[in-house]
Amino acid sequence: MPWDIETPAVVVDTTRLERNLDRMQALAASTGAALRPHAKTHKCLEVGRRQLAHGATGLTVATLAEAEAFVADGCPSVFIAYPLWAAAGTRPARLAALRERAELRVGVDSAAGAGALAAAAPGVRVLIEVDSGQHRSGVPVAQVTALAAECRALGLDVIGAFTHPGHAYGKPDLAGVAAAAADERAALTAAGAALEGLTHDAPVLSGGSTPTAEGGVAAPLTEVRPGTYVFGDRQQLVLSGLTEHDIALVVAARVVSAPRPGEAVLDCGSKALSSDRPGWLKGHGLILEAPEATIVMLSEEHAVVHGLTTPLRVGDLVRVVPNHVCPVANLASELLTADGEELTGRWQVRARH
Amino acid sequence: MPWDIETPAVVVDTTRLERNLDRMQALAASTGAALRPHAKTHKCLEVGRRQLAHGATGLTVATLAEAEAFVADGCPSVFIAYPLWAAAGTRPARLAALRERAELRVGVDSAAGAGALAAAAPGVRVLIEVDSGQHRSGVPVAQVTALAAECRALGLDVIGAFTHPGHAYGKPDLAGVAAAAADERAALTAAGAALEGLTHDAPVLSGGSTPTAEGGVAAPLTEVRPGTYVFGDRQQLVLSGLTEHDIALVVAARVVSAPRPGEAVLDCGSKALSSDRPGWLKGHGLILEAPEATIVMLSEEHAVVHGLTTPLRVGDLVRVVPNHVCPVANLASELLTADGEELTGRWQVRARH
Repeated sequence: MPWDIETPAVVVDTTRLERNLDRMQALAASTGAALRPHAKTHKCLEVGRRQLAHGATGLTVATLAEAEAFVADGCPSVFIAYPLWAAAGTRPARLAALRERAELRVGVDSAAGAGALAAAAPGVRVLIEVDSGQHRSGVPVAQVTALAAECRALGLDVIGAFTHPGHAYGKPDLAGVAAAAADERAALTAAGAALEGLTHDAPVLSGGSTPTAEGGVAAPLTEVRPGTYVFGDRQQLVLSGLTEHDIALVVAARVVSAPRPGEAVLDCGSKALSSDRPGWLKGHGLILEAPEATIVMLSEEHAVVHGLTTPLRVGDLVRVVPNHVCPVANLASELLTADGEELTGRWQVRARH
Repeated sequence: MPWDIETPAVVVDTTRLERNLDRMQALAASTGAALRPHAKTHKCLEVGRRQLAHGATGLTVATLAEAEAFVADGCPSVFIAYPLWAAAGTRPARLAALRERAELRVGVDSAAGAGALAAAAPGVRVLIEVDSGQHRSGVPVAQVTALAAECRALGLDVIGAFTHPGHAYGKPDLAGVAAAAADERAALTAAGAALEGLTHDAPVLSGGSTPTAEGGVAAPLTEVRPGTYVFGDRQQLVLSGLTEHDIALVVAARVVSAPRPGEAVLDCGSKALSSDRPGWLKGHGLILEAPEATIVMLSEEHAVVHGLTTPLRVGDLVRVVPNHVCPVANLASELLTADGEELTGRWQVRARH
């Protein structure tokens, strides 16, 4: 690569990004579902604006700080898809300020959380989080009616239910993703029935995850919240049917040490790539210039590469496709933009907390 | 805990911090070795100042940005203990600016890296990195003389050798640490002999790592570069003989979901704790309020806890000792300070890149 840049650096190919935005918007539109992308993947105002320009109805976020950053930039509607604890510190005031500037929706999965939210943001719109099989947060379907009734009694405006089929990431094959997508549809179908009579309008039934959405958006989902699709990553090459030509973000790194034959050290350690690695994925990233090699170990500033047959020398620049792209953006302060090999600018990562 | 804070938050106990600074300074002084702490652990000007006030001769850093932050704050001497690729972008100008304000030392482990450094920062002081058994960066002892001679031919000022015995982290016992410390001493002894006649003064022989230093600093080391000792972490409870009373940094987190008996979800995901976990350590952190439990899974904003017998409820605040503290500070924008249970202030994490 001809880039004379200081490494490690995160580089986004804007042509591929646009293609990814188009593809997901079309997938959602094919069944009339709203697309509300998860902005935690990029935390970047420029990408959020593009998502909205492509037709997204609003953005999904995980934290209050992310919501604030995108709303301050003009995003008309944000969904904090997380069981936010609303009672602490300045959160009531922050929630109030947010609601003055945008439509706000918040996730709820417990009576205690709902009580704190109702006190902090009276009457705010909520979606009940339902567990579709990941067993992280979210109530079982059997508890949706009771929790929704409790929310209503607290004065909250229940508008629907949401789930994240995170177990789609558990196995390295499309069959596992399809099974998780079926779980997602089943949980939201049941949640929709459980909310009968408890919402003013037809309930929002909001699904998530790039793998299940890339496989095709289908009823009963009225909304999808994929995040990773904007950039793609090494996990998505396996789980979403993406190819290397869909990957819109790489970590540019330099060989800084090559003390043994067939080995090298890159300057993209866990501070650039993060340590995220699903158990089924070998190594810590795909080196596009040396796909035969494995990043066997990361420390903060070192990526130790084994199994090289490509002759890499100290000073060479390589591009690494990270295992999981979301923490990579979170670890960066800026993203360089490129169109093919030409560097075109830089975007700040504004919504990091 | 009585703290009304927004979580996740990183909280530093300054009384314990001071005790840790005292202890390590005394360990180094016991053999007359210089202490040059690795500032990547905290990236925080206030902690760097305290280290210097306790008697550190300077600071160790991993990146140019870290060096710049501490030098701008008045640190008189920095060692970039990393085989920095000096030729890219603005690095030559940045190195020149650094050298005007402080003593600068840089690590070297290849002729190509030395060549780039000599062009970017003519005559700068360098230490040869030697591999003492981690097999990350660093040349074998047998190559020290040749590389040092090459550095001298390039006009660089060779002042010594350094190593990081990172293999001390490979096994969960003090015997493994003692073996790595023996490797560290042996490699530096051999490097010292290999540098005979190639340095102006007696060579700096610089060792590293908190586990090997906590076990006792000994000849031939003339300098030690521990980082983690300032805060301690869950790894160091095993590797350094530290106890829970030495732990000066915790991640404060709140229970945000408790959908199943014996389980809970905390809001300290991998964005707070990082995903760092050595193979020999079960789970992603120690919950001080529920030490019986295991953090079985992290996603960015969720820590899924299993095996709870402590009755944790949604909204409860807990303190988590992270597995590895360095990435935790890197992921935070500020550290809250506390004296026991009383919150006393906040420190910015200024040197994050």
